[in-house]
Amino acid sequence: MAENSDLAVAGNGLLSRRLLLGLSLGGAAASASSSLLGAEATRFVIPEWSKKPGPGPSAYGQPSPFTTGIQRDPGRANPLYPGGGASRTPLHQLRGTITPNGLHFERHHAGVPAIDPAGHQLVINGLVKKSLSFNYDDLIRYPMVSRIQFLECSGNSGALFRDNPPDGTAQSIHGLVSCAEWTGIPLSVLLEDAGVDTAAQWLSAVGADAASMGRSIPLSKALDDVIVALFQNGEPLRPEQGYPMRLFVPGWEGNVSVKWLTQLKLSREPSQFRDETSKYTDTLADRSSLQFTFPMGVKSIITSPSGHMQLREQGLYQIEGLAWSGAGRISKVEVSADGGNSWAEALIDSQAGDKSLARFRLPWRWNGSAAKLISRATDSSGAIQPTRTQLLSEKGNLAFYHFNAQQCWGVDTSGLVNNVYV
Amino acid sequence: MAENSDLAVAGNGLLSRRLLLGLSLGGAAASASSSLLGAEATRFVIPEWSKKPGPGPSAYGQPSPFTTGIQRDPGRANPLYPGGGASRTPLHQLRGTITPNGLHFERHHAGVPAIDPAGHQLVINGLVKKSLSFNYDDLIRYPMVSRIQFLECSGNSGALFRDNPPDGTAQSIHGLVSCAEWTGIPLSVLLEDAGVDTAAQWLSAVGADAASMGRSIPLSKALDDVIVALFQNGEPLRPEQGYPMRLFVPGWEGNVSVKWLTQLKLSREPSQFRDETSKYTDTLADRSSLQFTFPMGVKSIITSPSGHMQLREQGLYQIEGLAWSGAGRISKVEVSADGGNSWAEALIDSQAGDKSLARFRLPWRWNGSAAKLISRATDSSGAIQPTRTQLLSEKGNLAFYHFNAQQCWGVDTSGLVNNVYV
Repeated sequence: MAENSDLAVAGNGLLSRRLLLGLSLGGAAASASSSLLGAEATRFVIPEWSKKPGPGPSAYGQPSPFTTGIQRDPGRANPLYPGGGASRTPLHQLRGTITPNGLHFERHHAGVPAIDPAGHQLVINGLVKKSLSFNYDDLIRYPMVSRIQFLECSGNSGALFRDNPPDGTAQSIHGLVSCAEWTGIPLSVLLEDAGVDTAAQWLSAVGADAASMGRSIPLSKALDDVIVALFQNGEPLRPEQGYPMRLFVPGWEGNVSVKWLTQLKLSREPSQFRDETSKYTDTLADRSSLQFTFPMGVKSIITSPSGHMQLREQGLYQIEGLAWSGAGRISKVEVSADGGNSWAEALIDSQAGDKSLARFRLPWRWNGSAAKLISRATDSSGAIQPTRTQLLSEKGNLAFYHFNAQQCWGVDTSGLVNNVYV
Repeated sequence: MAENSDLAVAGNGLLSRRLLLGLSLGGAAASASSSLLGAEATRFVIPEWSKKPGPGPSAYGQPSPFTTGIQRDPGRANPLYPGGGASRTPLHQLRGTITPNGLHFERHHAGVPAIDPAGHQLVINGLVKKSLSFNYDDLIRYPMVSRIQFLECSGNSGALFRDNPPDGTAQSIHGLVSCAEWTGIPLSVLLEDAGVDTAAQWLSAVGADAASMGRSIPLSKALDDVIVALFQNGEPLRPEQGYPMRLFVPGWEGNVSVKWLTQLKLSREPSQFRDETSKYTDTLADRSSLQFTFPMGVKSIITSPSGHMQLREQGLYQIEGLAWSGAGRISKVEVSADGGNSWAEALIDSQAGDKSLARFRLPWRWNGSAAKLISRATDSSGAIQPTRTQLLSEKGNLAFYHFNAQQCWGVDTSGLVNNVYV
């Protein structure tokens, strides 16, 4: 530690992010675990795969068979809830800020419909001057916009409302958030075509899945930045993401980005769908419930280390994670290694834009003692990610949705990492 | 046309990009091809897929079976060149600027090696203070950076050097360019660990494929912005993109971003590998050849319309395409519908940053007469994409690599689109 003591920036081993800017943090890692090729070690063993040609180009690529451990976690199927459930993105195994399409989280209410776009229609009706129906070939001709933005299920991290800290990883606790380049037609353009009646205040969106998943959103949001998305990371939506089309509602809880979109109806009042009455409401301590709490709050999580990881040796590590906010950009992420007593500002890079995931990192020297690692994000509106105590004092512990409080990975003296409450 | 005549911005039907900014270009498309739901048409036919639950969440997602027409084109295998060849990205079928990992173009010299990362090593040697060997687990601990950047094969569009215009689509002519978020370790950090000898001027990179594909790059570039990439769009590299690790050399011809990277050797002179002598050199009109012509020039292509497309009716269309430059950002794209006699500036959006693909678009009204559609990009260095005549006057027609000239889609009076020379 002595040689880096001038680089300490907060308690319990946090080091200056200047170490990340082209300097050799890696030097320690390399010298700790790399072998030096001396004169006697220069005789290479040629691996088998270098000795004969492999297969040629292919029509559609797949991951390496050596990465089969990197998967979404779809949990166990519930026979009483056919097709229902969620799968979680393996955030602790990914890098950068784009989620590849095969690993974007899922949440279904009646499974994934196998939609033939030739038989699919999108209808706009209700309080409009003329009802319109679009087929896929109509919509594909429209001018589209593209944005790299996160999508988060409002139930993400919800287990942290409970009294006992859930055991888990960044994937199992926080894996209902992903980020992609979404490309689609501004909804305002389609609504312009239909002609919005001045009495209309709400827009109801309904999916073609067997649950007829429906949500109401205020017309003001629909006319602002909502799109009818047809493409994700360049290619047509995957079936589990709403192929052939979905609503994408930037910065709001994932459930309102209705998949397999088949109807948009304008009305004076919200539709009071099942999924905005029995679910996706926030129950407060007095047992009243808030409806239509759409925006996702400012949030950050540490993805490395992550629960169940085992630090093998004392020395330099990189703390890294993801931050996002439904209100705009991430302007700052701070990290604490001592349970929130002292904080240091992390380096933020790879933030593609407004409402995209941002990746942060900070070097940390683990000296073998117990540590409590926490991150805290601030967004461009000035909002600061709350502590769990602050969040619970506001929302009580009957809530489940919109958990955006700081989360703590405890590292014990054996190097084992677990989710803990501070 | 009369109602839009005040929006004309260049000859032969090009209209103001203001039409794309939230105004209803789509109105025409919808009224042309959408059915109106009258009172008698409101009885929906419920599709089969809405009647019963579908399958639940899955571990790794795949494209819809209804998008199997969207594939890379791997061409025919050549028995004399096992594993060799290329596959091309279906640019005319994608939107946005990210290329999904399954559709990123490929170029192999001896096929795709099936590398087990546990048996793979990256060695740095030659003119360094100490030779180093890294295994995958060493490298995964290093701090990484992420950038969304294009990769283009220097042979992309090379058929356009030939005397007769090749028949083809945006995919078959230009499909050796793609764009992804690349995440990896700055090469400067690894070279710092090894300690660069002051005599070193070049770095040779060699892959673990059966071709031992090798390229030399100047050390100045290696220390600037080159990374050892381990992740692509968030997940580990696909095998055909170099799993477990590749060099990524921003803005330079794709061949130097050596895949399956296993050795980096520093030296005074370039290694004169086969692929920088017999290939990847630019033969001039006097039959001398230029070596080490690394940077990819400023370039744009129209992806819609694309060759072999058939315009079905007169009316509003959107011309859209992609632009990029090895020198930086795209600052302007202009479009002509009359073979270059008049030009209008397109709208650029979705440009993630320096050396990323940029998407442009401009509305166009096709009046049924013949048209010649061309795009022309300008980059942040001020470089302007040349005409084919200008490029050939500089490079002759014996060259094959680094074709970045303007390309023209001819539209005949039947609406059929074909590659033509102006």
